Amino acid sequence: MNFIIIFADDLGYGDLSSFGNPSILTPNLDRMAMEGQKWTNFYVGASVCTPSRAALMTGRLPIRNGMMSSPNRVLYPNSANGLPESEITLAEQLKKAGYKTGMVGKWHLGHKEPYLPTNHGFDSYYGIPYSNDMDITRKLTPGNGYWELWTKLYDQLSIEDFNVPLLRGTEIIERPANQHTISERYTDESIAFIRKNKDHPFFLYLAHNFPHVPLFTNERFKGSSKGGLYGDVVEEMDYQVGRILEALKEEGLDKNTLVVFTSDNGPWLPTEISGGTAGQLRDGKGTTWEGGMREPTIFWAPGNIKPGVITDLGTTMDLFTTFSRIAGQELPKDRELDGYDLSGVLFNKESSPRKEVYYYRERELYAVRLGSFKAHFITKGGYGKVEKLYHEVPLLYNVDQDPSERFNIAEAHPEIIEKIKALVKEHESKMVKMPDMLKDLESGRNVP
Amino acid sequence: MNFIIIFADDLGYGDLSSFGNPSILTPNLDRMAMEGQKWTNFYVGASVCTPSRAALMTGRLPIRNGMMSSPNRVLYPNSANGLPESEITLAEQLKKAGYKTGMVGKWHLGHKEPYLPTNHGFDSYYGIPYSNDMDITRKLTPGNGYWELWTKLYDQLSIEDFNVPLLRGTEIIERPANQHTISERYTDESIAFIRKNKDHPFFLYLAHNFPHVPLFTNERFKGSSKGGLYGDVVEEMDYQVGRILEALKEEGLDKNTLVVFTSDNGPWLPTEISGGTAGQLRDGKGTTWEGGMREPTIFWAPGNIKPGVITDLGTTMDLFTTFSRIAGQELPKDRELDGYDLSGVLFNKESSPRKEVYYYRERELYAVRLGSFKAHFITKGGYGKVEKLYHEVPLLYNVDQDPSERFNIAEAHPEIIEKIKALVKEHESKMVKMPDMLKDLESGRNVP
Repeated sequence: MNFIIIFADDLGYGDLSSFGNPSILTPNLDRMAMEGQKWTNFYVGASVCTPSRAALMTGRLPIRNGMMSSPNRVLYPNSANGLPESEITLAEQLKKAGYKTGMVGKWHLGHKEPYLPTNHGFDSYYGIPYSNDMDITRKLTPGNGYWELWTKLYDQLSIEDFNVPLLRGTEIIERPANQHTISERYTDESIAFIRKNKDHPFFLYLAHNFPHVPLFTNERFKGSSKGGLYGDVVEEMDYQVGRILEALKEEGLDKNTLVVFTSDNGPWLPTEISGGTAGQLRDGKGTTWEGGMREPTIFWAPGNIKPGVITDLGTTMDLFTTFSRIAGQELPKDRELDGYDLSGVLFNKESSPRKEVYYYRERELYAVRLGSFKAHFITKGGYGKVEKLYHEVPLLYNVDQDPSERFNIAEAHPEIIEKIKALVKEHESKMVKMPDMLKDLESGRNVP
Repeated sequence: MNFIIIFADDLGYGDLSSFGNPSILTPNLDRMAMEGQKWTNFYVGASVCTPSRAALMTGRLPIRNGMMSSPNRVLYPNSANGLPESEITLAEQLKKAGYKTGMVGKWHLGHKEPYLPTNHGFDSYYGIPYSNDMDITRKLTPGNGYWELWTKLYDQLSIEDFNVPLLRGTEIIERPANQHTISERYTDESIAFIRKNKDHPFFLYLAHNFPHVPLFTNERFKGSSKGGLYGDVVEEMDYQVGRILEALKEEGLDKNTLVVFTSDNGPWLPTEISGGTAGQLRDGKGTTWEGGMREPTIFWAPGNIKPGVITDLGTTMDLFTTFSRIAGQELPKDRELDGYDLSGVLFNKESSPRKEVYYYRERELYAVRLGSFKAHFITKGGYGKVEKLYHEVPLLYNVDQDPSERFNIAEAHPEIIEKIKALVKEHESKMVKMPDMLKDLESGRNVP
């Protein structure tokens, strides 16, 4: 069975029509959800870019592989490091099982040569090495600084305002990358990869730049949506996803290809009108509230996957484990993995083996979900002047009954807090944290 | 063509799976949305029960028919009045076109005999005359008062705590109504009505009591949902809707019956865990924010309705106009109607003729939507200690791009405010308000 992961960037839980958005039309993803499984309790490994992608690629909490840091949180164009060579990526794992592996899109696990996708198990790479808003060339002034780019100037930006490079393999082939056409070109590259490898098991990792700011679309999608420029960008992404599914059908590969769609973290709320929505979930990107780490997720493999809405737990780290099992590739035994095999849910609608979620931020365990219950030991807002609060008695929410985390039930349920604390104790007894690899910068400060 | 309106009570915009709920499973309504049209910008005539139902039944803003009041807002068991006889209900209108008419469920437009459904155009009636939380028999004490029933005691209530009557025609046949079985019995009655009239054009108005508090379900649904008791109740409603659609299919009536599903107003947020969610929409029941008046709405008529997601505007008042046109019944000429004919959207996916929405509350015009833009002239919270604010410069939101009403753009768009003000001027020049018919009580104060 082939595998395709389509990864959006900063897409909010509530940004797709099938996940409740009233203004943005996403017919391709909606159909994908209807024909496949729509997962409503699916999490990422961190609420910002680099550690979330590290979790996806390694099947491990990013605290284990050095990709979780404070205060940098993500890799920057002046970062010295990247995902350690010692990590086994999903691409390397599937290569062992004989898969062809291709990566298209945003990597953000190290832009220096040793850390690029082609040195982490991918046969080919075409994409940008870090976020599309890095390398800003536009002059920022007080009152017209970084955040104003998205809240005020979002529809006046040009691709020349960002000196982001486009790579093929390890070579820069375009700079600045033309972000107007990049989603289309990512899709072209992906389809070419699919067609080239149609007679061979393959793994394709397509990580779109958008809807992370800056927002650019193909000319055809400009003004297409009632949801504004943000809506246009999401609607183009939906269209580009549709092209991938269409290509699979044309090549007769839809029956033996498992496609997963999700995003790296929740909406970047301080970008205001340039950001998405977490729907009814609380807060967004950067936080360990549900809006930061629960993502709209769809599994698709018509005829193989039992269609339906899945409210059980899953995470991006489970893909490493699940794909390995499906591909018949033994899991590495020399390291702790954080994934579960979800294939029973996908193919037989069994209940998910995952019962817990760990919400790490900046090298600390902020919150833990066990079944329906989530305990916050530390809370902190996403961006700007935010207070970090340590909760001696953790905040406790039933996030199934109260997904907006409105009603703290800690006082009524000390026994659940005790259970979660015991789980944490066991978790921490086995936790080996790798030193912070993101803190080393080659020069100066970063934006933002 | 037959017509069925299924009306929920206090259902939030985000309470159905297809409208983004992560915990509550509503497979029947989701399938209905997929086979039909899912409307994401569909409004009610008021954000509380009685005036909203008056708007639905008459196709007119409730300010025109006396059913909009301050401070009572809705009818109570000690109210003296009801919907004036001079009003033409949708049932009377369709009767003129030869339809059989049946009403099942909560009426709330007057419980005294002259105001009951059978005196307002319905051939038959089976249901409760006002809200299921009225007639409280349980002793309320300070600290264990009205709101604590829903926030603290919600799963300890029994049907004997509410002395609500169940009527057939104009006779009380059960008191207190057994609310555990009432959704099932409403559906049984509805299906009996459908089968009885299968060879004749019919109009059925089925108004469920739930998910308005108190929450009761059939024993089979107790604990069925991850969404708690509220989720159980919504999942039972979904199941009961499925039974109606199934019966239509069995009788071969699905091809010539138009079914509309919506709710009377948004979620009752102060009931906390006993209430729903408006998803990303702001606030809820009682307010003129989007969460109060925009409802999850589905039109279904397989083979007749062009399936899809509709982001154009519609309101419950449009049903009077639309059904009349489809039934070939001329609209009354002696009064102002507030509806538009939506049949072009339903059958041909034309754009909606409706471009504006008036948000009235307590006899005043609080807000107006024109196209994507909504101006708030007055704002006020839903319940409790809430400040009423008159905005000299109205708050202005682009509710397509910003459905959560977060970013006031009044300063940047005075020209849009001028346009909306001109619309208001014209609207008010033709407005004849009927005196407040809800203010007259036969005794004492009401709860809440």
